[in-house]
Amino acid sequence: MTATPPSPPRPQLKIRRVNLDTGRENVVVISRQSTALRPDVFRGFSRVELRANSKVLLATLLLTDDGMVAPDELGLAEPAFRRFGEQVGSPITVTPAPPPESLDAVRAKIQGRALSAAEISAIIEDIVHYRYSDMEIAAFLIGSASFMTSSELLALAHAMANAGTQLKWDHKIVVDKHCIGGIPGNRTSIIVVPIVAAHGLMIPKTSSRAITSPAGTADTMEVLARVDLGVDTMKDVVNACHGCLIWGGHVNLSPADDILISVERPLAIDTREQMVASIMSKKLAAGVTHLVIDLPVGPAAKVTSTVEAMRLRKLFEFVGDHFGIAVEVVITDGRQPIGNGIGPVLEAQDVMAVLANDPAAPRDLREKSLRLAAHVLEYDPDLRGGTGYTRARELLDNGAALKQMHKIIEAQGPSGCNTDIGTLSADIPAPRDGVIEEIDCLRLNRLARTAGAPIDKGAGIKVFKKIGDHVQQGEPLYRIHAFDDAQFELARAGAKADNGYVVGAHSSDESKP
Amino acid sequence: MTATPPSPPRPQLKIRRVNLDTGRENVVVISRQSTALRPDVFRGFSRVELRANSKVLLATLLLTDDGMVAPDELGLAEPAFRRFGEQVGSPITVTPAPPPESLDAVRAKIQGRALSAAEISAIIEDIVHYRYSDMEIAAFLIGSASFMTSSELLALAHAMANAGTQLKWDHKIVVDKHCIGGIPGNRTSIIVVPIVAAHGLMIPKTSSRAITSPAGTADTMEVLARVDLGVDTMKDVVNACHGCLIWGGHVNLSPADDILISVERPLAIDTREQMVASIMSKKLAAGVTHLVIDLPVGPAAKVTSTVEAMRLRKLFEFVGDHFGIAVEVVITDGRQPIGNGIGPVLEAQDVMAVLANDPAAPRDLREKSLRLAAHVLEYDPDLRGGTGYTRARELLDNGAALKQMHKIIEAQGPSGCNTDIGTLSADIPAPRDGVIEEIDCLRLNRLARTAGAPIDKGAGIKVFKKIGDHVQQGEPLYRIHAFDDAQFELARAGAKADNGYVVGAHSSDESKP
Repeated sequence: MTATPPSPPRPQLKIRRVNLDTGRENVVVISRQSTALRPDVFRGFSRVELRANSKVLLATLLLTDDGMVAPDELGLAEPAFRRFGEQVGSPITVTPAPPPESLDAVRAKIQGRALSAAEISAIIEDIVHYRYSDMEIAAFLIGSASFMTSSELLALAHAMANAGTQLKWDHKIVVDKHCIGGIPGNRTSIIVVPIVAAHGLMIPKTSSRAITSPAGTADTMEVLARVDLGVDTMKDVVNACHGCLIWGGHVNLSPADDILISVERPLAIDTREQMVASIMSKKLAAGVTHLVIDLPVGPAAKVTSTVEAMRLRKLFEFVGDHFGIAVEVVITDGRQPIGNGIGPVLEAQDVMAVLANDPAAPRDLREKSLRLAAHVLEYDPDLRGGTGYTRARELLDNGAALKQMHKIIEAQGPSGCNTDIGTLSADIPAPRDGVIEEIDCLRLNRLARTAGAPIDKGAGIKVFKKIGDHVQQGEPLYRIHAFDDAQFELARAGAKADNGYVVGAHSSDESKP
Repeated sequence: MTATPPSPPRPQLKIRRVNLDTGRENVVVISRQSTALRPDVFRGFSRVELRANSKVLLATLLLTDDGMVAPDELGLAEPAFRRFGEQVGSPITVTPAPPPESLDAVRAKIQGRALSAAEISAIIEDIVHYRYSDMEIAAFLIGSASFMTSSELLALAHAMANAGTQLKWDHKIVVDKHCIGGIPGNRTSIIVVPIVAAHGLMIPKTSSRAITSPAGTADTMEVLARVDLGVDTMKDVVNACHGCLIWGGHVNLSPADDILISVERPLAIDTREQMVASIMSKKLAAGVTHLVIDLPVGPAAKVTSTVEAMRLRKLFEFVGDHFGIAVEVVITDGRQPIGNGIGPVLEAQDVMAVLANDPAAPRDLREKSLRLAAHVLEYDPDLRGGTGYTRARELLDNGAALKQMHKIIEAQGPSGCNTDIGTLSADIPAPRDGVIEEIDCLRLNRLARTAGAPIDKGAGIKVFKKIGDHVQQGEPLYRIHAFDDAQFELARAGAKADNGYVVGAHSSDESKP
């Protein structure tokens, strides 16, 4: 009965490129009439392993009946095609993929066991090599969201920092300033960096682009200069200017963090430990030695109470101490936008107005930037304790910061962006006489994004009134800017339904400024 | 500055069918050059809402550059096209979709809060209406895996039962028999049902197909008769024969369960509570009043200890009591396969041999089926207590069960399956003289599946030796059957690497039978 053993056939298909952007996940398409392989066999295995030459890639499999791929082809969607890096038509084998071994640890975590550093490191390694499906990444995040021990937090930050580029600097002191985010406007980094760099401390700042907000620091800086620099150019800029303001995505610092965030966001799970591991992994990878963290507290901010802010501060300090990074957490007012612009071009205008000492520049943005710059400057051992603020103001007022900013812009290269402000605009009026009591940061972020920011650099919101300001009925609270008709109307309709402002019932007699 | 308000434009696209099988998830494809809508706007929103006439569907969005869809089209992949049920070319609008509201409860669950019955019901409603992405379903499952209260378990079983077809029967006693699975072979249901039906109790049995195993009861029954009956035909069969043996997928009992299982399996998370909610939701929906559960315990079974078996038994009893279903849990030997065949055709042969009182029929399958049938028959108030086993044996031995089986087969309709056994075969030999001490059920399941079961009905394994049997070196332990060369070779190579048997070191003198 026993058949003679032939050598096991290795069915081969030809690579085809399928023009389908599947986000980050590797996806391949196979014909239901595939000649080389019976796709039915894959029922119950949605994950497959691709091999060509010595390359191996895991991917999620989709089936098709029609001409998208021929029976002797395997279609590689973007980004699987790009990552695999083999030519169209070259041979490839596909087999059902066993799940990555580190998934056992994820399952143990879900069942309540704390993970070892080696297990966490294996998980992060598999994630950055695209061996996890999105669902498997979600399983790790959610399993970790229910609890994470201090040791796990340290191991996670360490594993993430080690999984990408690790910058090394010759300087003993490498400073940085980071905001946990959530506050509209608030572009202090683009003011703090030139002040600190003008003083002579090294501040190699990398920032993110917006994912769900109307602008990230990288989006706003892009209005002023190129931000997609590689590691070598970044180092040249920092060596020439003591600082830079670039997009972190291009230098591959803690790539696992970018992957985890892209899965976290749609699920809107964001725990304290994951936030700290995320931020500290980037700082570790960037070679930062001294860090100031801006932690805004407000009813619509990421942190809503001082109790929660204190817990977060302790956690940042704990991780900083472990890795030898000096960390200072500055609790700031997160009740309302900082500056007047929300959206890249409008924010860039605010920033340049502050740096140029324009009398019309938003005072809150100037003051907050000076305060944060002061904390950073205090890390300079040669500066007399307590004089950080005076020094920061001096560098801003005497034009040194502006000059340094122009130097950084020149070193990074000119921006290719259109700097026009949205040509469609609508003022949103106060519904009554009174005093502004509250501003919903989440609401303004959403409206600015609806208007087109950050895709349309000049779209967004220009804020006229802040908390404590007196207004008369009909007086504009803010102005929406957009380019696209549909988005303009959606943003207007959104503001009409809920403008995000609470105007208190003060008499209009008192409210005259 | 304020523009005059035009009515907000509702950009429309034309429906195109994209022949891409995306499993269960709704997926749509839009051109990066879309005329009506700027896909960049969807960066950060992977979920979209489709509207046409009064229909609404949530889907995951993919982008394409080339001709897969034109700039004025929206491509609907399977199954989104089928579910939306609108014609190719008809107008459709697409907007970024807000996440389903019930996701707030999922997030609360992840953060450790117990959910109310209303929250669980809303989650299940959204899941069965395809409003959750796979990742969101995973979030619910994983959040629930870390803990689930008794109230949550009851609410989940109830919500799942209510979310699909609910069968009603005129009889006071509607019995059922269910195995939690994991043991190769073990097709007792196909023997128990005709015995119980021949006795006259009503047993409307619905079974599942294999997902990761080499055969489900529905796959094996399909070798003998049609199993994809709708609700009305099922009722006719049950009324005519007192019982049926059909595939549950076609009658839409607890569809949420099928969805949850399809996400659970690839992640391999399977908690006690989820298992009980899953099984009991199906029984509630099927209108079962009296239930016997086969709970195999063994080192490679789903339940590995008697302590764990006892906890599971209590949980089944608790849920049964709450919903008024009499539940008896029978703990059985799960150390090895039951019967000789593993794979649909081989198992069907075992089953028919037992029903026909063939002297070569596997004794273990006969005995286990009689024992389970006895427990079911004891639910008959007209049967004298303790005589269930005698009655079951009587119905089997006198041919009444076989006759009832033929009646059921005739009522369900003839099978369209090829009943040949895999033409490629290889015997796997004992590596030494001795006594069989252990058989790894997981390993045999995997080898049978590698050989092609259940897709190839006649592929699988025929077992020759069980625990306690004496073997001589070279004597076959089991035979692998396959049709496909590649799968045959993979299964052989797999058995060579690890045949799943432990042969103990008894002297060959003693081992002669």
